[in-house]
Amino acid sequence: MKLDNSNSNGQMSIAADVTPPNNSDDADEAFVPPLNFAMVDNGIFRCLCPEPYPETTAEFLKASGIRLYQFGIDGCKEPFVNIPNDKIREALKVVLDVRNHPVLIHCKRGKHRTGCLVGCIRRLQRWCLSSIFDEYQRFAGAKARVSDQRFIELFDISSLKHNPLSFSCSKK
Amino acid sequence: MKLDNSNSNGQMSIAADVTPPNNSDDADEAFVPPLNFAMVDNGIFRCLCPEPYPETTAEFLKASGIRLYQFGIDGCKEPFVNIPNDKIREALKVVLDVRNHPVLIHCKRGKHRTGCLVGCIRRLQRWCLSSIFDEYQRFAGAKARVSDQRFIELFDISSLKHNPLSFSCSKK
Repeated sequence: MKLDNSNSNGQMSIAADVTPPNNSDDADEAFVPPLNFAMVDNGIFRCLCPEPYPETTAEFLKASGIRLYQFGIDGCKEPFVNIPNDKIREALKVVLDVRNHPVLIHCKRGKHRTGCLVGCIRRLQRWCLSSIFDEYQRFAGAKARVSDQRFIELFDISSLKHNPLSFSCSKK
Repeated sequence: MKLDNSNSNGQMSIAADVTPPNNSDDADEAFVPPLNFAMVDNGIFRCLCPEPYPETTAEFLKASGIRLYQFGIDGCKEPFVNIPNDKIREALKVVLDVRNHPVLIHCKRGKHRTGCLVGCIRRLQRWCLSSIFDEYQRFAGAKARVSDQRFIELFDISSLKHNPLSFSCSKK
């Protein structure tokens, strides 16, 4: 388990093998998904989470044997430093590895860093850009950034082509 | 196959056994999901589609052997007539029947009628209301309606309790 909860300026996190609070035993207990929570594809989920990473969440992950991968990416405002290509690439490898599924991708707002990573997943799934941006904007709302969308558009997927990712509703 | 493309004022449609245009054979061909497209849960998708139902889409469904279920529900503006409880209940039965999966739920904007149906699915999955409304609002944006959210909140799931629907990230 990699559990780095040190004091950092910005993180995008991936929790692998996500299970919700134990609600399946009691059908009357409410299930409380975090805000901006959604299913990206089979085994891949997204949401926002507070920053710095909440200690109780970290403890829950540790107690549940859930691996936490963290990627230091500043959720900085525009004018923008570049989104670190190498961090997104590392994160993609974790997300695409089905041995890690189910995974939960999360950052402070669930908009920009998570939105960029999900956009790159859609590139690998061969989604057209207008649909990728439609999804990005749905989660980013008024906070949508052209720079994020430019990053997604220019992200080089050629080195990842050996790892194609079909969308779950594609013909098998 | 039930394919009713008659001239109606408003429809919510469910296409069962959805397959995208044949893109899996050619990894370089772009996959073009419709606007407001998203995965609701394993085997359940949502989007908007033009209204009246496009003839080319109806022909594609017919040629592909995809069943189309249509539920006449006006996508009317506020002040609001009631959303027909019985239609939503009928639609839920189609969506919850895994023999129909994968299914695509769609209406003109993918916001109100589809949003109400997805909200009722979340009620069955025991999501808390704040998370249900968060999802509803993400798709409805500035067009979100209190009346839709009230419908979701008041929808009586007791008669559907024999058909519990666990969320796909719940423990099996």
